[in-house]
Amino acid sequence: MARLPIMIDTDPGIDDAMMLTLAFAHEEFFDMRLVTTCSGNISQDKTNYNARTFLSYIGAQVEVARGLEQPMFRELEMAEEIHGESGFGNVEFPPPTLPVSERPAVTAMLETLLASEEKMTIVATGPLTNVAALLLAHPEVKPKIECISWMGGAAVGGNMSPSAEFNAYVDPHAVEIVFRSGVPVVMSGLDVTHKAFVTLEETKSILAIGTEFAEKAYGLVTHYLDVIKRTPFHEENYDQVLHFHDVCAVMYLLKPELFEGQDCFVEASLEGITAGATVVDFTNRTGEKPNVHVLHSVDREAFVAEFVKAVKVISDRVESR
Amino acid sequence: MARLPIMIDTDPGIDDAMMLTLAFAHEEFFDMRLVTTCSGNISQDKTNYNARTFLSYIGAQVEVARGLEQPMFRELEMAEEIHGESGFGNVEFPPPTLPVSERPAVTAMLETLLASEEKMTIVATGPLTNVAALLLAHPEVKPKIECISWMGGAAVGGNMSPSAEFNAYVDPHAVEIVFRSGVPVVMSGLDVTHKAFVTLEETKSILAIGTEFAEKAYGLVTHYLDVIKRTPFHEENYDQVLHFHDVCAVMYLLKPELFEGQDCFVEASLEGITAGATVVDFTNRTGEKPNVHVLHSVDREAFVAEFVKAVKVISDRVESR
Amino acid sequence: MARLPIMIDTDPGIDDAMMLTLAFAHEEFFDMRLVTTCSGNISQDKTNYNARTFLSYIGAQVEVARGLEQPMFRELEMAEEIHGESGFGNVEFPPPTLPVSERPAVTAMLETLLASEEKMTIVATGPLTNVAALLLAHPEVKPKIECISWMGGAAVGGNMSPSAEFNAYVDPHAVEIVFRSGVPVVMSGLDVTHKAFVTLEETKSILAIGTEFAEKAYGLVTHYLDVIKRTPFHEENYDQVLHFHDVCAVMYLLKPELFEGQDCFVEASLEGITAGATVVDFTNRTGEKPNVHVLHSVDREAFVAEFVKAVKVISDRVESR
Amino acid sequence: MARLPIMIDTDPGIDDAMMLTLAFAHEEFFDMRLVTTCSGNISQDKTNYNARTFLSYIGAQVEVARGLEQPMFRELEMAEEIHGESGFGNVEFPPPTLPVSERPAVTAMLETLLASEEKMTIVATGPLTNVAALLLAHPEVKPKIECISWMGGAAVGGNMSPSAEFNAYVDPHAVEIVFRSGVPVVMSGLDVTHKAFVTLEETKSILAIGTEFAEKAYGLVTHYLDVIKRTPFHEENYDQVLHFHDVCAVMYLLKPELFEGQDCFVEASLEGITAGATVVDFTNRTGEKPNVHVLHSVDREAFVAEFVKAVKVISDRVESR
Ligand SMILES: [Ca+2]
Ligand SMILES: [Ca+2]
Ligand SMILES: [Ca+2]
Ligand SMILES: [Ca+2]
Repeated sequence: MARLPIMIDTDPGIDDAMMLTLAFAHEEFFDMRLVTTCSGNISQDKTNYNARTFLSYIGAQVEVARGLEQPMFRELEMAEEIHGESGFGNVEFPPPTLPVSERPAVTAMLETLLASEEKMTIVATGPLTNVAALLLAHPEVKPKIECISWMGGAAVGGNMSPSAEFNAYVDPHAVEIVFRSGVPVVMSGLDVTHKAFVTLEETKSILAIGTEFAEKAYGLVTHYLDVIKRTPFHEENYDQVLHFHDVCAVMYLLKPELFEGQDCFVEASLEGITAGATVVDFTNRTGEKPNVHVLHSVDREAFVAEFVKAVKVISDRVESR
Repeated sequence: MARLPIMIDTDPGIDDAMMLTLAFAHEEFFDMRLVTTCSGNISQDKTNYNARTFLSYIGAQVEVARGLEQPMFRELEMAEEIHGESGFGNVEFPPPTLPVSERPAVTAMLETLLASEEKMTIVATGPLTNVAALLLAHPEVKPKIECISWMGGAAVGGNMSPSAEFNAYVDPHAVEIVFRSGVPVVMSGLDVTHKAFVTLEETKSILAIGTEFAEKAYGLVTHYLDVIKRTPFHEENYDQVLHFHDVCAVMYLLKPELFEGQDCFVEASLEGITAGATVVDFTNRTGEKPNVHVLHSVDREAFVAEFVKAVKVISDRVESR
Repeated sequence: MARLPIMIDTDPGIDDAMMLTLAFAHEEFFDMRLVTTCSGNISQDKTNYNARTFLSYIGAQVEVARGLEQPMFRELEMAEEIHGESGFGNVEFPPPTLPVSERPAVTAMLETLLASEEKMTIVATGPLTNVAALLLAHPEVKPKIECISWMGGAAVGGNMSPSAEFNAYVDPHAVEIVFRSGVPVVMSGLDVTHKAFVTLEETKSILAIGTEFAEKAYGLVTHYLDVIKRTPFHEENYDQVLHFHDVCAVMYLLKPELFEGQDCFVEASLEGITAGATVVDFTNRTGEKPNVHVLHSVDREAFVAEFVKAVKVISDRVESR
Repeated sequence: MARLPIMIDTDPGIDDAMMLTLAFAHEEFFDMRLVTTCSGNISQDKTNYNARTFLSYIGAQVEVARGLEQPMFRELEMAEEIHGESGFGNVEFPPPTLPVSERPAVTAMLETLLASEEKMTIVATGPLTNVAALLLAHPEVKPKIECISWMGGAAVGGNMSPSAEFNAYVDPHAVEIVFRSGVPVVMSGLDVTHKAFVTLEETKSILAIGTEFAEKAYGLVTHYLDVIKRTPFHEENYDQVLHFHDVCAVMYLLKPELFEGQDCFVEASLEGITAGATVVDFTNRTGEKPNVHVLHSVDREAFVAEFVKAVKVISDRVESR
């Protein structure tokens, strides 16, 4: 079978690194053509540096292009209190060997799509600024996009405000442009990512792999936990589980059978106290045509097993260098 | 024990009539001092007429004052497709014997509160226009209000738009004024009212009471069902259950032990696609002080039993005239 | 000829005091039934105190009722940097002999209007919170209102933001409620008040009256000048002229022949960067029916002469006590 | 002296054609590298067709690239009632000989700027959608842009709503992106374009040139007049003068000495009744750094003389083919 041609837009960030782990562990499945970085969890300077650092460390050979600095209209709000000042908590990696691409992210995305003979899939696990700018300025690429698998949004609740998830909150105008673009979108919002958790017990099985990479992966995810304990932004069982939000966007492409969702019309709220809310019309009250496949359920145990397997694959790759 | 001094602001409307049934069945509990009508399900002309018609029919002796015609800023949107052109489906009542009060609603509320020696409770089961106008223009009454038990809003979802419940949607500015007023508010939103349903089977126990009033009550609630079947605004089990939204606001006062809720900070969205959403901060992300007690659960079977009991009480009263 | 029955809503404030000077100098013309205070230039505590202080000093016999503390939705923004911490710059008056009315402002307005046999005129020279609350909660008074003569708004420009005048900026929702009320409104916005200026030379003719009151009046208006010199909020000839904004609202009633204006449809912008703008549709692009008489020109010299005359009248009254 | 390297973004449209007349009459001054079409007065299909038609007719040799179909967030509102269904009133031209460029507009702009050794000037005389998409997606071009000379906006008043000019109204988000971009902007808003009028008498001097092109130019501008007579959107002397709005954006580059303006901070209102207003902070109340040079005055007679001269130049060129 032909591999799935994809590009990834990311703001590493801890769960972005876990997402990259899963994606690069499956080179037999994904034909990875480009990684671009967006501003979000931390600044563009840092997300780009971290993407190159992490990908260099795991031995990935891929172009890493630098994206836009700022959301379309709002001031950039970052999540350094979650991901640490560096974006990787206290875990350290050697300096990157992968260079910054000479092509800015939007140009790299544009040229990669236009050069592709097949339709490509875009994975986006940060604010959608880069993707929206591409679609807005270059609608001619739309026929080259199979779908956009995005981690972000929420049908119910939020984690930045009572009704907005972080990635959507940072750049709601970008979300709305992507939703309206006509390109198929799969939304891994908090509805499903809050079910895609890993228990503390299960994280120990990562540590048990016994490699340097596994140790770093364990360090990353448990930093997350330390932070979450100190914030008011927690769920009921906050001190016993970890949510690997961004991992869902790749896992869905790899194992769609683990997920359940519904095609709905979804709009982003741009202003006021609900800014960044992704309003999902589950019962089609608006009468509008569905534009987003909204994931809401996941086979959690299979999800965790697949993730641990990916850590092993990358561990072996790192060890064998 | 002293009875609870209350006033009711309502827009009958089918479930408003059921709410009045429950309230007036418990004269041993409620000291009913005033009924005011708001514009909502249908126009002020009709809600005031219906309130007087229904209350006359059930033999209530109470002042019925006419309220404001229009929401604070938005155009009035009504729900005639749900409640029928008359507001009572196809069920007919004799003309009212109760007159329209000479006092406009806000003046009647103001004077009733100022004249009361004890704190009073306000039940509101329509858009909050009258209540908000009172609080805005006459903040001196606030110390005389024990709490406002309101049917309206929703922490999750909506029934007029994907994120707004009808009463909140019609006048979101009024909701926000009430929420900010400093007066304690209990919100019976869709979260709890969708759990306060009556099954078709159970409605037959109303009919089985065998009185004229029970027949009319049955006629009202099943009209509701006929309509709901024809609309796209339904829940999964839409053709087997009926929601007595407004009844919750009175039932909570009568039997608080049937309900569960949480004190939260809640804001109303005033503009844009989420206009009328009542954004509930369950996990106190905003850090704001709770201003609303948000009901989310109810002991449904006890709720239904209490309601059927009330139909019997009113039936006896009507028959014995 | 019968005198004009009026009530005044004000937030003294320097130019509010000048407006009261003009109004109370013409007892042969105005039948003054009530003064209410609004929050604006300074807090309600201070505007009410200042109204009573100034009116006591000039020997006025009138009920002074305390109004609402806060704008309808926005946080109160005051102009203490213009009017001084006390609201009267460095000018001092003896403590008030007039008491605070036992009636809150909206109740006093309501009862005064309902008790009046003739239609009354409302002068408003601050944010419209009190007036809007009255009209919103008690629409039954509308037939008793001849017109509302308001100082506020601007067809072009602003003085609190590039497009909003102070009184409109403080409570734009109140402005919109008044504009939509159906009651005739005369708007003395910056368009006309910036033409109703007094030159430094002319202020000396106030001082030349030689009374204690004239000295205080001179002190008030020149404090204004001192402040304006220190702010960036000035017009071209800022250091040579003074604008008696609030005086226009009373002068128009007294001498309408000094003014020119146009009937227009006007709306208030409620949100965003233009919040508080009063959008005047001079060429009827919207096709909406005119709801406001927008003043744009004034016979400045006659205006100044009338004002100086009023200072003399009040001077005589104060001296003769 | 080196010629000024420019590209033009336009939506012909009658005054766009007059603007192109002036620009292409001065090949000694302008180094014309690209024309792109935006959606505005009429649809993209028609503006692109008209640009190619008109430029073919006047013998221009230039790439004409097709731009974006829709504003960033709002629905496209067109002005067919002003410019006629075709966009050129009743005046007809032979079919275009110039082809549609194979490069979409944003790509053509991007590549033209990146390929230029000198900084380039962008003339924009329609909604700013194309320009904003370029700046948003490709901020790397900013150092290659000398300035953007835009016809659009208004410090005072509007022609689509009481506070918004047409080009700004159609895509206010695009305006805001351009204003915030850091690229110098010269705004020829209604403030100056309403002073850049041509009298009926003066238009006869166009007709008097006696050529086919002059006749067509006369036909275009007088169609304008016919239409304006039939609309309510007119100024006082509407039946005696014509406004050549778009011509200002080119005339300013050619003869800056004919204009007066001021550097100001300007923001676009995105929502509500003022959507599309360009709020100009003439007295720097906001304290923000100026981002736009706002033109407000023009030497009208010199402006008209220059324009008539341009019609002669193009006439000669067309005749001599
Ligand atoms: Ca991320
Ligand atoms: Ca109701
Ligand atoms: Ca004032
Ligand atoms: Ca144009």
